[in-house]
Amino acid sequence: MKHRLLLMAFLFTGVFCFAQTEDEKMVEDFEPSVVNQPGKEFPKVNSEGRVRVQIEAPEAKKVQLDIGGVKYDLEKNEKGMWIGESAPQDEGFHYYQLNIDGASVPDPGSKYYYGAGRWGSGIEIPASDKEFYELKDVPHGSVSENIYFSEITREWRRNFVFTPPGYFENMDKRYPVLYLQHGSYEDETGWSSQGHANLILDNLIAEGKAEPMIIVMDNGYAYKPEDLEKAGENRPRSSFEDVLIKEVVPQIDGKFRTIPNREHRAIAGLSMGASQTMSIIMNNLDHFAYYGGFSGTANFPGDKKVDAGTFLNGAFSNAKDVEEKLDVIFLSLGTKEAEVFFKTVNAFRDMLEKQDIDYIFYSSPETGHEWLTWRRSLYQYAQLIFKK
Amino acid sequence: MKHRLLLMAFLFTGVFCFAQTEDEKMVEDFEPSVVNQPGKEFPKVNSEGRVRVQIEAPEAKKVQLDIGGVKYDLEKNEKGMWIGESAPQDEGFHYYQLNIDGASVPDPGSKYYYGAGRWGSGIEIPASDKEFYELKDVPHGSVSENIYFSEITREWRRNFVFTPPGYFENMDKRYPVLYLQHGSYEDETGWSSQGHANLILDNLIAEGKAEPMIIVMDNGYAYKPEDLEKAGENRPRSSFEDVLIKEVVPQIDGKFRTIPNREHRAIAGLSMGASQTMSIIMNNLDHFAYYGGFSGTANFPGDKKVDAGTFLNGAFSNAKDVEEKLDVIFLSLGTKEAEVFFKTVNAFRDMLEKQDIDYIFYSSPETGHEWLTWRRSLYQYAQLIFKK
Repeated sequence: MKHRLLLMAFLFTGVFCFAQTEDEKMVEDFEPSVVNQPGKEFPKVNSEGRVRVQIEAPEAKKVQLDIGGVKYDLEKNEKGMWIGESAPQDEGFHYYQLNIDGASVPDPGSKYYYGAGRWGSGIEIPASDKEFYELKDVPHGSVSENIYFSEITREWRRNFVFTPPGYFENMDKRYPVLYLQHGSYEDETGWSSQGHANLILDNLIAEGKAEPMIIVMDNGYAYKPEDLEKAGENRPRSSFEDVLIKEVVPQIDGKFRTIPNREHRAIAGLSMGASQTMSIIMNNLDHFAYYGGFSGTANFPGDKKVDAGTFLNGAFSNAKDVEEKLDVIFLSLGTKEAEVFFKTVNAFRDMLEKQDIDYIFYSSPETGHEWLTWRRSLYQYAQLIFKK
Repeated sequence: MKHRLLLMAFLFTGVFCFAQTEDEKMVEDFEPSVVNQPGKEFPKVNSEGRVRVQIEAPEAKKVQLDIGGVKYDLEKNEKGMWIGESAPQDEGFHYYQLNIDGASVPDPGSKYYYGAGRWGSGIEIPASDKEFYELKDVPHGSVSENIYFSEITREWRRNFVFTPPGYFENMDKRYPVLYLQHGSYEDETGWSSQGHANLILDNLIAEGKAEPMIIVMDNGYAYKPEDLEKAGENRPRSSFEDVLIKEVVPQIDGKFRTIPNREHRAIAGLSMGASQTMSIIMNNLDHFAYYGGFSGTANFPGDKKVDAGTFLNGAFSNAKDVEEKLDVIFLSLGTKEAEVFFKTVNAFRDMLEKQDIDYIFYSSPETGHEWLTWRRSLYQYAQLIFKK
């Protein structure tokens, strides 16, 4: 190890001094990230979860790696290559970017994902339990892109639809449907890309742990042109509930071999999507029978007491009604999420407990408000639904 | 116009002098590109086909726009924003990148495409005939991602499959299949992304100009591990023909409602894909009846005379055989392609003419070795196949 570090020190004789010292004992077992572009050596990840990036920028004065809200200075070697590492990151998927003399840009070595309001770089720190979302030798479903024109928002929209293994071949079989939503500053691509919803379900179905199901992933941002105009700089009134209930659900039931009733429809979402889908299901209990809220509830944000009599128009005020209509209420949080998520979800849980309404709570170990929390949440939730 | 140019001159009081003068008469009608990331103002395109980019890089010494093989210097304004324009570009789609103090990176304003051997920025110069590949109010097919394990290359691979409008609903109908290949340094994503194969077919089918068909877009790079090892630094022997014929075609016929015979299978490709698919069809005339070679033929590269007696093992030596087996031979080139493509394709055409073998040649006006040539070629070719 010492030998390799010394060799590296010899190579990195740039104009800047070293941030890294041997005392920090960085483990030199970096491997190319599993989400690199084909043939790209960098970015790399080591067993501590550090991210090492490298970029050629011979004329640059300052290059940084921007990940997890921290900017790490890179060092330039004599070939004009900038290289450097982050502190250890949590297991799972993270958005990141490079900063070159003040310009924030994607890393040309990584694949790109939509999150944080942009198409940009992502990196995967292999998780100890990654096996559940890995590409394995099991039958695989398909993910299809479906384009539709929304009469409500007057725009072309699209969703991605996971059809389980055997969907195309077994033409008599009909399936239940999970409507699965992304979070804020994300879009309809997230769940089947960085979320691995398709692989999670392929693996669960192969093990007989989840019912074969269709998953519909639409875009939670949906605004009428007149509402956009009215709002100006403010957040416009969302029409996503209308788009989902009046346009998407009928289209899906018309196009795919679904079982078109509430006992065979589930809905779930992460963060903003958890909040949206909680409102949607409580307003549409004739449509859905299973709710999943990953890292969020509709009382976000805050620790204010949730009053069952008034919250969502009293939707939770009668425990018997709720339990008759909702077969599953699933909530989850990562143990490292910011306080506001704990406060929000706990205030909602307190209300449920006071109302004596059953729910299932899942806690994702050592993860924050990021995709590993949500992959794990889907893995848990998918095993609970359509089991009647 | 003069007024706006003067205003711009006032704004761009950077440390560098102006490359643009009023004499060049740049038309100031720039609009955000149609392939920008949501909410991004730049890059922009004007009616001359110039590309204007902007990026914040307050500490950078030199920022360039790299498009069409030319690097254009940008100018910095007092806010640290670099801005500048390219010369007029050809109509259609182009890959490009930014260069910041020597670092080649994607433009954070554009969407990303796989081409030139990387995921990177792309821009669209609206074509005068763009209507044929636009998203219109017609029934839309779906594009699905299908994952499979290749026993030949011992790796997970995938293809994208376009199923025409009505495929999911009309469960008794069976369809012909077009196998459609990308070019070198591109991959299986190209045709349904920057190629717009799905929209081209949606529009043609809506007008009754093409038969409803399935399109399969796989990855033309396919190597056995042992061939990769043997090749070292050289190009390994390709196993794409084996993968396509022995694995992909049977899978597609097993999974989708195809008409599994040669009269209902077509094959086409662009550039490298044109060359590959020409070899494949001539080796497998029991599988396919229609060939399309866009900007390429299997004698690439060069102007050497093509000898019908020896070329592709004499596959074109008997005109009667060829015409009995091949219902369509379609070739195309853009009028602005590099000489090598003209020489190659013309040498092949000379051979066909000498052999008295019928073929159809399409010339794409004012386009180079780029996607508008190939979109137009598909538009032409799709109208010729499955018409018997």
